[in-house]
Amino acid sequence: MKPIKPVKIKKDIKCRELIDEFSNASFGARRIAEASEILKTIKRENCDLFFGFAGAMVPAGMKQVVIDMINDNIIKVFVTTGANITHDLIEALGHHHYKGSRYADDSKLHKKGIDRIYDVFMKNEVYQSLEKFFDENFDKLKDKKTVNEFLWEIGKIIDKEDSILTTCYKKKIPIFCPAITDSGIGLMIWNNLIKDKKIEFNDFEDLKEILDLTWAMKNKAVMYIGGGTPKNYIQQAMQFTNPAKYGIQITMDIPETGGSSGAELKEGISWGKMDEKAKFVNVHCDATIALPLIYSYVKE
Amino acid sequence: MKPIKPVKIKKDIKCRELIDEFSNASFGARRIAEASEILKTIKRENCDLFFGFAGAMVPAGMKQVVIDMINDNIIKVFVTTGANITHDLIEALGHHHYKGSRYADDSKLHKKGIDRIYDVFMKNEVYQSLEKFFDENFDKLKDKKTVNEFLWEIGKIIDKEDSILTTCYKKKIPIFCPAITDSGIGLMIWNNLIKDKKIEFNDFEDLKEILDLTWAMKNKAVMYIGGGTPKNYIQQAMQFTNPAKYGIQITMDIPETGGSSGAELKEGISWGKMDEKAKFVNVHCDATIALPLIYSYVKE
Amino acid sequence: MKPIKPVKIKKDIKCRELIDEFSNASFGARRIAEASEILKTIKRENCDLFFGFAGAMVPAGMKQVVIDMINDNIIKVFVTTGANITHDLIEALGHHHYKGSRYADDSKLHKKGIDRIYDVFMKNEVYQSLEKFFDENFDKLKDKKTVNEFLWEIGKIIDKEDSILTTCYKKKIPIFCPAITDSGIGLMIWNNLIKDKKIEFNDFEDLKEILDLTWAMKNKAVMYIGGGTPKNYIQQAMQFTNPAKYGIQITMDIPETGGSSGAELKEGISWGKMDEKAKFVNVHCDATIALPLIYSYVKE
Amino acid sequence: MKPIKPVKIKKDIKCRELIDEFSNASFGARRIAEASEILKTIKRENCDLFFGFAGAMVPAGMKQVVIDMINDNIIKVFVTTGANITHDLIEALGHHHYKGSRYADDSKLHKKGIDRIYDVFMKNEVYQSLEKFFDENFDKLKDKKTVNEFLWEIGKIIDKEDSILTTCYKKKIPIFCPAITDSGIGLMIWNNLIKDKKIEFNDFEDLKEILDLTWAMKNKAVMYIGGGTPKNYIQQAMQFTNPAKYGIQITMDIPETGGSSGAELKEGISWGKMDEKAKFVNVHCDATIALPLIYSYVKE
Repeated sequence: MKPIKPVKIKKDIKCRELIDEFSNASFGARRIAEASEILKTIKRENCDLFFGFAGAMVPAGMKQVVIDMINDNIIKVFVTTGANITHDLIEALGHHHYKGSRYADDSKLHKKGIDRIYDVFMKNEVYQSLEKFFDENFDKLKDKKTVNEFLWEIGKIIDKEDSILTTCYKKKIPIFCPAITDSGIGLMIWNNLIKDKKIEFNDFEDLKEILDLTWAMKNKAVMYIGGGTPKNYIQQAMQFTNPAKYGIQITMDIPETGGSSGAELKEGISWGKMDEKAKFVNVHCDATIALPLIYSYVKE
Repeated sequence: MKPIKPVKIKKDIKCRELIDEFSNASFGARRIAEASEILKTIKRENCDLFFGFAGAMVPAGMKQVVIDMINDNIIKVFVTTGANITHDLIEALGHHHYKGSRYADDSKLHKKGIDRIYDVFMKNEVYQSLEKFFDENFDKLKDKKTVNEFLWEIGKIIDKEDSILTTCYKKKIPIFCPAITDSGIGLMIWNNLIKDKKIEFNDFEDLKEILDLTWAMKNKAVMYIGGGTPKNYIQQAMQFTNPAKYGIQITMDIPETGGSSGAELKEGISWGKMDEKAKFVNVHCDATIALPLIYSYVKE
Repeated sequence: MKPIKPVKIKKDIKCRELIDEFSNASFGARRIAEASEILKTIKRENCDLFFGFAGAMVPAGMKQVVIDMINDNIIKVFVTTGANITHDLIEALGHHHYKGSRYADDSKLHKKGIDRIYDVFMKNEVYQSLEKFFDENFDKLKDKKTVNEFLWEIGKIIDKEDSILTTCYKKKIPIFCPAITDSGIGLMIWNNLIKDKKIEFNDFEDLKEILDLTWAMKNKAVMYIGGGTPKNYIQQAMQFTNPAKYGIQITMDIPETGGSSGAELKEGISWGKMDEKAKFVNVHCDATIALPLIYSYVKE
Repeated sequence: MKPIKPVKIKKDIKCRELIDEFSNASFGARRIAEASEILKTIKRENCDLFFGFAGAMVPAGMKQVVIDMINDNIIKVFVTTGANITHDLIEALGHHHYKGSRYADDSKLHKKGIDRIYDVFMKNEVYQSLEKFFDENFDKLKDKKTVNEFLWEIGKIIDKEDSILTTCYKKKIPIFCPAITDSGIGLMIWNNLIKDKKIEFNDFEDLKEILDLTWAMKNKAVMYIGGGTPKNYIQQAMQFTNPAKYGIQITMDIPETGGSSGAELKEGISWGKMDEKAKFVNVHCDATIALPLIYSYVKE
């Protein structure tokens, strides 16, 4: 048994050093250290990391960490919600998300045309820019066969270094979005559909692609920011091919309610989603705190 | 100001009476009572209730409540995850979910071919039945133009009174499943796809359908069991048409992490998803407890 | 393995029947059923039930359930926070708690002399009544040797059937309050102290008493509403005498943060607080919902 | 409205810099930054900071941060649970807490004499050392008039630089422990009591002391690690004297269940515990992560 060593904060301590301190502590602190250590191994072994990214992470300011993790060759497959890529596109079109307050009067915000995401504000006028973007670029997008190709094309068109979509496009990192109809981008496609302008892609081609990828890849890792469809979509791909050897999950959802989002990674062993000998950790922490901290441990 | 009256439990108290007691109390108890009262209003006014159903609710034993709510003409539009309809189909094919333990050894379960969902067990062999079902019925399913039609057809084929799918089919209640690729049923479609047998539906036709429905319906209500894509898909439909007048949300997710699943319904006012004068309540409770209790208040 | 049976709600279903339905389901519902079954066993075996009662349960309307559980001879030892007995006394003195709103403007409430406890309001003037009560009754209270005797004496003086304090006094149920200085009643004692009027009791005599009780009692059970000092005080008494054979815990606190309040009962086995063969369950639910429901199962 | 700026992690980023990045983000990250900024103000203005320290923080490795915050003259009044000071004393007597696992078999641990605190292990033999300590030092401790004096005396006797008790003693920082009977140290006092060796202190003298302190101090701040009696004891002292101007709360408890531990600081305004113009923040994060991070921002 190894003794706990009290966490010591020195002046100007680096995040990296803080995490080393955490590795000798317990509870959430130790989880952060374990996750950092696993991410380091994932990077060192050049594992194929499937990264599930749920929750309003782009509005909260988390996109750059993801972009850097892609550029650092850590993330190999990116799975997200329609919302996150919509917000990425919104920022690429020149709009901002704003520091707001959770205590704001929602009726007043509505009158001012401001949409609230907890303590983030967004101007409702972003939807006009989205519409304009899809009107102008419809022809380039319409023939894409998969959601992945469609999203890469958007990334190519907007061509912004600080966009997740552009970064995925440039690095040829597959993007999966199993519920694209459930998002602002989805609504824009519908908006064209009612004008009889149809997008052609087939979600099942994307499913085939992620399953082919998981079959081909042998030294796999998973990292989940929140749960939702990104987590479940990756988990089922592992189940029907071969399991992941490393796992990191950052969520505040609890296992007691039985949903996939809060389920401990351990549960995945019974399904064959996680390897019996896999190294994994559940970090019960707000992802906006935990993700940058854990990433700082492997930043070069 | 109305005084709190202590909750009094008499012998053989009915759920309905318990909820009346709760209405004079506070914290979670009062929320249950408020939700029950709102559901009663929804029923009395014959509102168009959009019901979002996320989390492993079918495995946990919640399908009959949903079936009854459909047969009672309370639920008018049903939105769920791929997992819940897959589990509904699994039970319709004669399989069971089992009472298990969260403390089970997942490696041992894996060796025995048992998949764990928190404290529910399921035999992995269900996937063979699913495969057989889709092989046998592919021709009936292949030409469906929307996910809704596809799911109704499954409900028609299995023809079980105790199936959500069959009930939706018989009552002509639209079913939306914005992430059907992210489920066992999705995998079965993929499985046929790799044999060059293609299903034709287009998710955006479903999106069009739910938006047309929300446009047409004026006295709308929403009820969310968990969050995820079902909640978000309904919320965005409200945003782009006209807002809901009543709302009930049952979830243990918290607003602090900023995700859609834990967001308070109040937030929807800023987006125009909830009416400024809407009556709504967030019930912070395990849905397997809260949903049957709240439903008991309107059961006739 | 026993199959899950979907929960069926019939018209006018009784709480007792609902819980029987829950026993065949999973997640939180099954926990409620397990807790109900354990409480039934506790009652049937006439176990010595140590009942820990934390959180603002009296303001929320939970006192009558506790009073009934004492009068039904279920609760044998009562341990609570200073707050709960202060609120019990406040109601016994003729004041009310009121149905309020969590969204109220706290500055305005302050100006109006209203104290907020989440969605419960209380008039600040209650403190004058408390002061008057202690001024008038100081002589009867001053010589009490233990907190228990002191609280029984208050129960005797107020003599209200709907008071927890009076009920404990009349049924001779020991009341422990390990942090009485941390409460309105504590402040009233201090208020007299600064007038040189001293209360004599010694907390360690109470500790001796609960330890003597736990030594003497062999068939013990614990039931915790929330955590805090009530839980910990009972747990340590078990540790230093002999362990509990049955346990029910109702809390929303989570184990991940490592505190005693959220710790699973299982952890108590390592300490010798719970018997290795004990039957116990952690109910992750708002106590204002779960406690009345579980109690309804044993109400005669 | 200020735009969100995505958090950027550079190589070897310092915690201080990470927090500056967080200040431009949202959700939990921004809360960490706000708390850090408030703590900086508290330090700069040399406020009288009342620090409430609940949960098994010493076993988890958090004692050094507290010691440093006392030595840096940030913490002016220290309020904690009996457990934390017992664990501080245990370490001062030469024992350790150990890195364990939450998945350990509690029955086996019990047989080996190991007590589990979530993922921390402690040898049960520590109680013999505690007993020996109190036997040997009883005469020095018996006449102490307050819990504070008693705890200072323990700190003086053990005389360890890395002990919270010794640090409080040396810096003359008042320690309050409103539920000392509810702890291992409490049990040791009881253990002597049954041998007719009595400790003399009166908890109400401690209450008088903290109320005198809060009266005298005008520029007050509160910081809560967890809730429990430490938070409530400080809050009530503010209520009956004059309110705090700054507040930081770090907890995972939620407001919805109505207890004091999860209550938002805002609620304190209605009671007069927090000033109407107070600056405060609720950080919804595991304290073992948040406390060291926030402290790093003011470390010199």
